[in-house]
Amino acid sequence: MPIRKRRPLAQPPGSLVHRGERRTEHSQIRLIRYDETHCDITKLDAFPLEGVGGENAQVTWLHFTGLHDVRELARIGQAFSISNLTLEDILHTGSRSKIENHESEIFVVTKMITVDEQKHTLDVQHFSLLLLHGNIVLTFAEGPTTTFDPVVERIRTNIGGRIRRFKADYLTWAILDAVVDNYLFVMDHLDESVIAMDERLQIDATEVAVGELYALKREINQLQRVVRPIREITGSLLRDSSSLTTDTSLPFFVDLNDHAIQAIEKTEDLRESSSSLREFYLSAMSNRMNEVMKVLTCFSTIFLPLTFIAGIYGMNVKMPEAELPWAYPAIWAAFVLCAAGMLWLFRRMKWL
Amino acid sequence: MPIRKRRPLAQPPGSLVHRGERRTEHSQIRLIRYDETHCDITKLDAFPLEGVGGENAQVTWLHFTGLHDVRELARIGQAFSISNLTLEDILHTGSRSKIENHESEIFVVTKMITVDEQKHTLDVQHFSLLLLHGNIVLTFAEGPTTTFDPVVERIRTNIGGRIRRFKADYLTWAILDAVVDNYLFVMDHLDESVIAMDERLQIDATEVAVGELYALKREINQLQRVVRPIREITGSLLRDSSSLTTDTSLPFFVDLNDHAIQAIEKTEDLRESSSSLREFYLSAMSNRMNEVMKVLTCFSTIFLPLTFIAGIYGMNVKMPEAELPWAYPAIWAAFVLCAAGMLWLFRRMKWL
Amino acid sequence: MPIRKRRPLAQPPGSLVHRGERRTEHSQIRLIRYDETHCDITKLDAFPLEGVGGENAQVTWLHFTGLHDVRELARIGQAFSISNLTLEDILHTGSRSKIENHESEIFVVTKMITVDEQKHTLDVQHFSLLLLHGNIVLTFAEGPTTTFDPVVERIRTNIGGRIRRFKADYLTWAILDAVVDNYLFVMDHLDESVIAMDERLQIDATEVAVGELYALKREINQLQRVVRPIREITGSLLRDSSSLTTDTSLPFFVDLNDHAIQAIEKTEDLRESSSSLREFYLSAMSNRMNEVMKVLTCFSTIFLPLTFIAGIYGMNVKMPEAELPWAYPAIWAAFVLCAAGMLWLFRRMKWL
Amino acid sequence: MPIRKRRPLAQPPGSLVHRGERRTEHSQIRLIRYDETHCDITKLDAFPLEGVGGENAQVTWLHFTGLHDVRELARIGQAFSISNLTLEDILHTGSRSKIENHESEIFVVTKMITVDEQKHTLDVQHFSLLLLHGNIVLTFAEGPTTTFDPVVERIRTNIGGRIRRFKADYLTWAILDAVVDNYLFVMDHLDESVIAMDERLQIDATEVAVGELYALKREINQLQRVVRPIREITGSLLRDSSSLTTDTSLPFFVDLNDHAIQAIEKTEDLRESSSSLREFYLSAMSNRMNEVMKVLTCFSTIFLPLTFIAGIYGMNVKMPEAELPWAYPAIWAAFVLCAAGMLWLFRRMKWL
Amino acid sequence: MPIRKRRPLAQPPGSLVHRGERRTEHSQIRLIRYDETHCDITKLDAFPLEGVGGENAQVTWLHFTGLHDVRELARIGQAFSISNLTLEDILHTGSRSKIENHESEIFVVTKMITVDEQKHTLDVQHFSLLLLHGNIVLTFAEGPTTTFDPVVERIRTNIGGRIRRFKADYLTWAILDAVVDNYLFVMDHLDESVIAMDERLQIDATEVAVGELYALKREINQLQRVVRPIREITGSLLRDSSSLTTDTSLPFFVDLNDHAIQAIEKTEDLRESSSSLREFYLSAMSNRMNEVMKVLTCFSTIFLPLTFIAGIYGMNVKMPEAELPWAYPAIWAAFVLCAAGMLWLFRRMKWL
Repeated sequence: MPIRKRRPLAQPPGSLVHRGERRTEHSQIRLIRYDETHCDITKLDAFPLEGVGGENAQVTWLHFTGLHDVRELARIGQAFSISNLTLEDILHTGSRSKIENHESEIFVVTKMITVDEQKHTLDVQHFSLLLLHGNIVLTFAEGPTTTFDPVVERIRTNIGGRIRRFKADYLTWAILDAVVDNYLFVMDHLDESVIAMDERLQIDATEVAVGELYALKREINQLQRVVRPIREITGSLLRDSSSLTTDTSLPFFVDLNDHAIQAIEKTEDLRESSSSLREFYLSAMSNRMNEVMKVLTCFSTIFLPLTFIAGIYGMNVKMPEAELPWAYPAIWAAFVLCAAGMLWLFRRMKWL
Repeated sequence: MPIRKRRPLAQPPGSLVHRGERRTEHSQIRLIRYDETHCDITKLDAFPLEGVGGENAQVTWLHFTGLHDVRELARIGQAFSISNLTLEDILHTGSRSKIENHESEIFVVTKMITVDEQKHTLDVQHFSLLLLHGNIVLTFAEGPTTTFDPVVERIRTNIGGRIRRFKADYLTWAILDAVVDNYLFVMDHLDESVIAMDERLQIDATEVAVGELYALKREINQLQRVVRPIREITGSLLRDSSSLTTDTSLPFFVDLNDHAIQAIEKTEDLRESSSSLREFYLSAMSNRMNEVMKVLTCFSTIFLPLTFIAGIYGMNVKMPEAELPWAYPAIWAAFVLCAAGMLWLFRRMKWL
Repeated sequence: MPIRKRRPLAQPPGSLVHRGERRTEHSQIRLIRYDETHCDITKLDAFPLEGVGGENAQVTWLHFTGLHDVRELARIGQAFSISNLTLEDILHTGSRSKIENHESEIFVVTKMITVDEQKHTLDVQHFSLLLLHGNIVLTFAEGPTTTFDPVVERIRTNIGGRIRRFKADYLTWAILDAVVDNYLFVMDHLDESVIAMDERLQIDATEVAVGELYALKREINQLQRVVRPIREITGSLLRDSSSLTTDTSLPFFVDLNDHAIQAIEKTEDLRESSSSLREFYLSAMSNRMNEVMKVLTCFSTIFLPLTFIAGIYGMNVKMPEAELPWAYPAIWAAFVLCAAGMLWLFRRMKWL
Repeated sequence: MPIRKRRPLAQPPGSLVHRGERRTEHSQIRLIRYDETHCDITKLDAFPLEGVGGENAQVTWLHFTGLHDVRELARIGQAFSISNLTLEDILHTGSRSKIENHESEIFVVTKMITVDEQKHTLDVQHFSLLLLHGNIVLTFAEGPTTTFDPVVERIRTNIGGRIRRFKADYLTWAILDAVVDNYLFVMDHLDESVIAMDERLQIDATEVAVGELYALKREINQLQRVVRPIREITGSLLRDSSSLTTDTSLPFFVDLNDHAIQAIEKTEDLRESSSSLREFYLSAMSNRMNEVMKVLTCFSTIFLPLTFIAGIYGMNVKMPEAELPWAYPAIWAAFVLCAAGMLWLFRRMKWL
Repeated sequence: MPIRKRRPLAQPPGSLVHRGERRTEHSQIRLIRYDETHCDITKLDAFPLEGVGGENAQVTWLHFTGLHDVRELARIGQAFSISNLTLEDILHTGSRSKIENHESEIFVVTKMITVDEQKHTLDVQHFSLLLLHGNIVLTFAEGPTTTFDPVVERIRTNIGGRIRRFKADYLTWAILDAVVDNYLFVMDHLDESVIAMDERLQIDATEVAVGELYALKREINQLQRVVRPIREITGSLLRDSSSLTTDTSLPFFVDLNDHAIQAIEKTEDLRESSSSLREFYLSAMSNRMNEVMKVLTCFSTIFLPLTFIAGIYGMNVKMPEAELPWAYPAIWAAFVLCAAGMLWLFRRMKWL
């Protein structure tokens, strides 16, 4: 997760400058308006100067992609009277996940996380949501994402009938639920990685490079940093009543909070499993070293005396017994007895 | 413990889909109705469309087995007006242990845990309980279980007389107490495993495979994840008064809370004992390696100089002393003296 | 500490069954009644059916030994109208240390701990105390104990004069203070063990078996489990005013709470000291291995080239220089120079 | 971070004595006065005896550099009626970071931290800020610093227009925000060090000296000690309303608090990353040792039997088979077979 | 820190028995009485039966040295009506640091700590302070100490003028501040030990005995046990207003509390530094072992094949190539090539 880049030093706060990677060529706006009977999905390249803050009865969801386009964002900010500090938090991809639960607006900053299957890395994307009076929901993402496709699909097809009947606070729930589902999906992925790693360690720990274990640890840590603050957000939505949320959607926020707690607990479990893996790896490696030492010891211990005996009879000294006719077979007998005795000893001491 | 599977993406919340393993062929319903004088136990294959919500004076306990049978569950849900979100929590085997203590219902989600003696693994089963007005208790389990047999037995035989005299809140207590007893039984099992492992380590640490220690750790971690949330449930039943619980059963809930705390503390103790075992194992292994190193060192240290002396007199160089008649015995004397001196030295340095 | 044994499955709660070891042949009752002027100590084999709940002005202390005698205990329970759940906690030697601070009674469950000097183990005994209106104190122990002898002695001899002048709440304090003193005595014992072990490790770590360190750790863990809950008990006696305790004895309960905190802090210190010992042991062992490795390396490093030189001149190949008259002394010179040079090198590199 | 030096023993508290390093030759005062239309920046060598506490409408910022000049500081203290205990905290470079939020003044003690690129060390500087009624802000630093240049620049050029329009509480925010930005800059630097170290470890852990890892740890610990107390300061400014701060600047203090939390979280992440590096280093080193052991073992295991065979046929004993014409090639065949067999074995056992 | 010795068993609480080491031959009393104009310092061997509780306007400070003199202490206790439980805490050198903040008295029990420069150990001394109405401060120490000399000096010389103008609560502050300064002095000492040890480890870790690292750890642990409770004392003096303390001395108690927090934080830092040292030591030792292993491996790996070749040509077998005239130089060439090739290989693999 990138560190918050310092505000360019001579710049006053609230200056709108994009700090972060550019993730899409052109910024895009998806504008969805719906009520129980109608639903209207439009894709725009630029924000229309008028006509958005329509009828209150309709829910308006404006999804903006491409934070690098500061000018477009500034126009949206102006149209919905968003304060500059809020816009700065939306723009600044390094800013902290948080919720600001005011009477006039609910402002959520969080992160989306996706698995890059090729590179085996996690990709973190900055995401903000603004719930305003008049059933308006604004969301801002760095680049294209498929996280919210099911929500859009539900609005379009009106499956279950609930999303079109309910208002903007239910939509807020649906969007944040998609984000948490997103976390749980990444957890599933990491969980599988942990299980796969565990199996490889069980089969042959020496086949695993220690770097792989630490790469896994890094991914889990990264996930945890992203997931940790979500509890604060869901808790506040549940606890701090606001005129922007209705009692009808309260059970859904209870459910969301449950999922957030579950996500945090699961991340803790992942951390512990991954630390268990590293501990196990060290034990296995240390055992292996013991194994190697044992072989070395036994081998040396068998051959050192044999070589010594051979060395004795290699001396250019007058050795009476070496001149006996059965000297050579006798020496061989000594070799075999010595080696056999040692092998028997090692077996008894459970070294082999 | 399986991670919460993502809700199929395009599906609205509250859709009734079973996510989890199918544990029984056919779903089954056990319906028990009792008061102080009568007791009626029926087994049904399908939920009767009428006639369940009988007289208030009687306690009704409906136990449903086989969560895969979503249609049957939906019918029960309709009959008792259970909300879809609640049904989803009942169905979803990955959902979190929790209590929802409302005025109109007390909803408990928890896990049952059993030891699979053959495979040496723990089997976790999803379990939900719903206490409704009119002395109705509904319980839902994934598959067959013997956990509640003693409770059914007590109702049937009326031993002690209390269970039939008291109402649905006492039954709730009896069921949850059976669940916690279930945990303590598994703990007894793991405690024995820890003690057995400890004894094996004390006798000969090298006989223990490091994988066994980590398998034990995994089981204890799994137990802890299941047991940890029980405190929240028993605490809420004790603390948050509800019109569904009476003062008569309060001492029993105090007792249940005590057992829950004890279960959690015992799990902590198990964790610590198991971590102690692993620490001890590492120490023992490292000691053993020291032992091996010592033998290797002493052996090499004794034979290297001897082999060297033998090597000298093996040289094809004119060596005046080698031609002396007593050369061979003298060399042997040198061998013996050299080896004896070293052995004495090693003994004095406590290496042997 | 034994795990709470499961309540036999088909048995209702509150059934009086002794679960635990039988520690004495026959149960016994010691009945003490005193006021400022009189003191009466009686030993009984069975509880008298009448005549115990005498005059209020007198303090009555009934001490029951031998929890296995359930029938006798039930009679006492009946005489003082003790509830079945309370009796179950008294009987059940595995139940948790706790306090129940009601208006009508103060019920304390705790553990006594003693050192078995022969077997070097700790012996934990279940102990309960019940303070009732009418200056009645009931205590229940598993087996014989000397923990309360000083209290009995003080009552008998009236040293200091306070114990006879004060009432049952002061007696409660005196009994619990004896229990905490008991803990501090065991701590003194373990403290000495830790210091003795430390000294042995400082002298020669290899003389210590790793099992001894873990036996010490186990004892300290066991003590901690017993001591930890005492704070809750003393804190509640101090904080929760009850009509059963008077302001006169408050300073004594403040003092008791201080001792309890001290006991807990000291246990923490013991834990840390013991963990320090194990850490030190590992360091010492690893250092020793380094030492051994250094010797092995130096030895091999000196003898390998010497043996090689001897091997060269042992070859059956025409070696011109080997035929020179001063060949043998020259080779010896080479041996000595080579060995001396290496020794000098090792010294400079601080390997020897 | 230097420890608080003891107050010279016979000296009463509140004596103004500079304890710390002298960081600048001469003390200096920078006096800035501004309102929306005017801005006046003066550099002074000595504090003017009159004329500072000018018009309320103007903001006065007096920045004092050079804490060793106690006399000058005392004169400033007198002019603004600062208490001696406050002056002592300003002077004493070892005193703790803290905030004193009184009605009449807000007093902040904190630290600035800079990276010394040459020596690869962190330089910590003591810094105090005093916000007084009458829009007066006094700041005190040990030596010259560039931390506040952007703030001065913003005042001078009036970029954004806000800083000149707002009052002293906004200036306080701007100064403290510069300090926190300063922390985040140092974190960026350490983050880069951690990443660079990680890359070096991944390439070749043996190239890294263990001292480098601990130097990095020390720097991160030092940073953490400086950063940790900032939360208390920003939290108090946010929470404890004072007549010295206005509602207009509240959102800025919320923002500052966010940054402070982010700084603390990031430091935690740095700590964990650095501890991960050390853990990885140990694993890599232990793996390398395994590698070395394997090579040693395989080598010895191959050559010991070969040398033994050669030793046998070097014996000066009558060996019938040695006199056969094909003896020499046969022995070579034995050498090759023996070595090849072992290599094959090692490959199968995955040792090579 | 000595464990609280058990109260002799048959003794009632509040019995005055000295438990601890006798640190001085004779007990001594230093009586100081002062107001703004006068100051009177007297040394007494025994407590005068009358005339101490003089005029309220004067501050009376009675400092008692030599807790073993129980009779003298009892007389002081009687003169100032100190309760027996308080006297017991004063006497009992093992009792816990604490504060009792009553309306009629403030009672502080704490420890003084000094460095024994010769023996490199810390010396802990029990110290109590009692602030009574009528501007009376009583202090009790085990043996002679120089900790309070600066305070006495300030009273005598009236430097700063404050101590003589202020009352007994200011004196209490001055005494406790001297105790905390005392802690910070010991910390400076340990800090220097840690830095010195760090430097030694950086130069050559093998020169450090592992026992030295653990001795340092023990000293820091001992300090921490003494320092930890001071926060509770200073916090209570700050927080719990009492008629014995005036608002004038409040800023001084704020200052004292700051110092106490700083002392605790610094002890934490010391702990961490010391644990870092041990961690570093282990890494350095393990690295060194790697180094040794590498040398051993390279040496064996070079000489084993050479010795084998020499062994071959030492065989008493007909070897055609050994009879060639250039056999000997060719073998030498083989020796050199083999060794050089290996050295080149080791260099490429970065083993040498």
